[in-house]
Amino acid sequence: MEFEAIRLTFPENSNIIVGQSHFIKTAEDLYEALVNTVPGIEFAIAFNEASGPCLVRVEANSEELRQAAVANALAIGAGHVFVVILRNAYPINVLEPIKRCPEVCRIFCATANPVEVLVAKTSQGRGVVGVVDGFPPKGVEGPEHVVQRKEFLRKIGYKL
Amino acid sequence: MEFEAIRLTFPENSNIIVGQSHFIKTAEDLYEALVNTVPGIEFAIAFNEASGPCLVRVEANSEELRQAAVANALAIGAGHVFVVILRNAYPINVLEPIKRCPEVCRIFCATANPVEVLVAKTSQGRGVVGVVDGFPPKGVEGPEHVVQRKEFLRKIGYKL
Amino acid sequence: MEFEAIRLTFPENSNIIVGQSHFIKTAEDLYEALVNTVPGIEFAIAFNEASGPCLVRVEANSEELRQAAVANALAIGAGHVFVVILRNAYPINVLEPIKRCPEVCRIFCATANPVEVLVAKTSQGRGVVGVVDGFPPKGVEGPEHVVQRKEFLRKIGYKL
Amino acid sequence: MEFEAIRLTFPENSNIIVGQSHFIKTAEDLYEALVNTVPGIEFAIAFNEASGPCLVRVEANSEELRQAAVANALAIGAGHVFVVILRNAYPINVLEPIKRCPEVCRIFCATANPVEVLVAKTSQGRGVVGVVDGFPPKGVEGPEHVVQRKEFLRKIGYKL
Amino acid sequence: MEFEAIRLTFPENSNIIVGQSHFIKTAEDLYEALVNTVPGIEFAIAFNEASGPCLVRVEANSEELRQAAVANALAIGAGHVFVVILRNAYPINVLEPIKRCPEVCRIFCATANPVEVLVAKTSQGRGVVGVVDGFPPKGVEGPEHVVQRKEFLRKIGYKL
Amino acid sequence: MEFEAIRLTFPENSNIIVGQSHFIKTAEDLYEALVNTVPGIEFAIAFNEASGPCLVRVEANSEELRQAAVANALAIGAGHVFVVILRNAYPINVLEPIKRCPEVCRIFCATANPVEVLVAKTSQGRGVVGVVDGFPPKGVEGPEHVVQRKEFLRKIGYKL
Repeated sequence: MEFEAIRLTFPENSNIIVGQSHFIKTAEDLYEALVNTVPGIEFAIAFNEASGPCLVRVEANSEELRQAAVANALAIGAGHVFVVILRNAYPINVLEPIKRCPEVCRIFCATANPVEVLVAKTSQGRGVVGVVDGFPPKGVEGPEHVVQRKEFLRKIGYKL
Repeated sequence: MEFEAIRLTFPENSNIIVGQSHFIKTAEDLYEALVNTVPGIEFAIAFNEASGPCLVRVEANSEELRQAAVANALAIGAGHVFVVILRNAYPINVLEPIKRCPEVCRIFCATANPVEVLVAKTSQGRGVVGVVDGFPPKGVEGPEHVVQRKEFLRKIGYKL
Repeated sequence: MEFEAIRLTFPENSNIIVGQSHFIKTAEDLYEALVNTVPGIEFAIAFNEASGPCLVRVEANSEELRQAAVANALAIGAGHVFVVILRNAYPINVLEPIKRCPEVCRIFCATANPVEVLVAKTSQGRGVVGVVDGFPPKGVEGPEHVVQRKEFLRKIGYKL
Repeated sequence: MEFEAIRLTFPENSNIIVGQSHFIKTAEDLYEALVNTVPGIEFAIAFNEASGPCLVRVEANSEELRQAAVANALAIGAGHVFVVILRNAYPINVLEPIKRCPEVCRIFCATANPVEVLVAKTSQGRGVVGVVDGFPPKGVEGPEHVVQRKEFLRKIGYKL
Repeated sequence: MEFEAIRLTFPENSNIIVGQSHFIKTAEDLYEALVNTVPGIEFAIAFNEASGPCLVRVEANSEELRQAAVANALAIGAGHVFVVILRNAYPINVLEPIKRCPEVCRIFCATANPVEVLVAKTSQGRGVVGVVDGFPPKGVEGPEHVVQRKEFLRKIGYKL
Repeated sequence: MEFEAIRLTFPENSNIIVGQSHFIKTAEDLYEALVNTVPGIEFAIAFNEASGPCLVRVEANSEELRQAAVANALAIGAGHVFVVILRNAYPINVLEPIKRCPEVCRIFCATANPVEVLVAKTSQGRGVVGVVDGFPPKGVEGPEHVVQRKEFLRKIGYKL
């Protein structure tokens, strides 16, 4: 078994979500999960069909994000994997509806960090084994960092 | 660390779901999740107990599926992994109740494709690192494939 | 790509949950998910921030569990991974609220077993690829084990 | 304010669910919630649009159930109320996906019993205030009834 | 149609939840929802079967709470209504698993306040139309009450 | 028992949601449910505390909506009832996170229609018994209305 690290590429002001699903209805169901949750969301969904014609199935309302989602889905190249790229919205807004989508198995990551998808290759095909999402910890927060963390979340209005 | 690709084997008209859970109550709770959701579902659940007697724990209402689920659970051989095989029903019907089961951690895949479970081996035991679910993408859908995809989902009644 | 097995260490009468999330709000949101669910729960949450200062972000109501959660999060060392250690409560009580937390991507394991987290290392950083949760199956339950399994769950009051 | 009890009428081997929703997308979303959950389900959904043309919006795959759903929705006559009638499936199979539907506010009842919907009338329109679902209790179960109840649920395979 | 206000009676250090469900499996499923969520919870569940023998179906692990739950269920006297009384736990701990229970339609209230259940009576039977849960508002909070409210929630550890 | 119809009043380009909850933490938890789901949402939450000081508890990020939410909560005057008014977002975006909020019992309605909340009055206090949400149906959709309904949902991008 060989392993490969695929660096994902997506526009700077966007976020990316990678997951495992099944069935081509994923493309339409994720489309609805996204538009039903955030008005004005810009997004693209690319899903790797894994049998028959084996096409990347795509729904999007932004041409730039569509191309990015397709490129990442092809680069990962693993069956039943999907890539969502979103703008004017954040993963925290949409992860719950994506997780509840009846075709979705699991989410590998949701991030705006530099991210590598780790792929295993067998004679049959490819499978995601993990992600390197951003960078390893450099230390542990002290009392002053706790204060800053809480203040930051309250300043941006996410917490009271 | 060594890696191994385990080819799953299941009856042709069935689907298979592989996940990670904890606690032997998984066998009974997944049983109820399945029978509560689809009347007439045929299924088997095999869960790898990972401490004490370390037995494959099984609930099923089909002898053929029971043997298949046990064989796959043993072949994977990783602690706290479960295998569900179902007939007269599809993963899309039951993934939500399985994901909501209070013991279930995550779902690796749900598929009727040829599928390999990728397993890592350490001195302690075995762990699933990924799946090769079907085949890699051969291209990207064009406008005519989008039309066909949508027509297909509407012909089988899954979408309006 | 190199791989490493990290043995988790946690107090004997506690359980550990390891997952992938995103965003430092995870620390506060998991805190609330836990205290809202089980009165009197003792716990610690450590989340690996994966950009900027890259600090392990921590919330806890037990100093012993706090130190254990931080030590495991640092040992795993993968971005956006979190570790929860709990006492006076069991994973079955809290997995559902943790899975529903809007930042959480997936749960790798929930266990009181000896457990190794399998980590891949790239030039960018580290990523969890799987877990070895307890031990491989030694056999398949027979009718007498089914009886014992069901009796046990009913004796501890988990089933009727 | 006046009150009226509307007796629902539905085919003998079917079940009825009555709820409050908002927005005409309810008709399509409930359609998908039902067909995604139970293969072979027969059903009808009637939703009382409450503004503009104020039409009963209907999706169904059975003509008999369609007429019954429409008749009940009209008889109740309250804005944003929906009626689902199902056959070859039971409320227990579909209540969770219906409750999770993003337009649905609440479920008044799910039953195969004789059922009255209690409606209040104001100068503006009508509103459901409650249901009489079956009959009042005649007593409290004793130990022998507990045994029978548990045996019954296990005989029909709903519990282990 | 006549209306009646039923004053619920339950032990002082307990909370009460009243809801609408369907099917006698409710008693067992709510039992599991409660014991799976809070270790050491004391509780009773009484469900008004609404067809056939029309018995109050009961599961409990406290004799005092069992009698209280049955008395309230009989006093309400409406088909398919259930009453849960709990101690050593709070509604906030268990409402989510109760709402997700596949038989449950809706929750009328969850409270430790004095509470009246409003019941309509028809020739067929009885139906809950609402609750009077505690007392009407006496005013609107000012800035000092906001501070106190937030401090209180943080002092009891429910918020950070 | 007396009954009263309370006409809700809210700004023309906003939507209103009325529900039953318990516990003053509702104000903070609904705040987070809303800001976590829709970036840029404008909203107000008013919750009728039903014991002790019995104050209307309020969180909002718009002064106009705050006043409207408080006025409606006071006009309804029933304990443990909450009112949410939102702009730049629709109920379909936020109903799921509101329903999943651990304090929330049920949702009475979500609407931009003229709406009356029906309130019962007893010697103890007040309770919501129902809503008149918009207007009664004037007829049943025919084939041409079905086409228009589906086209409309697809034109606004809610369905594919």
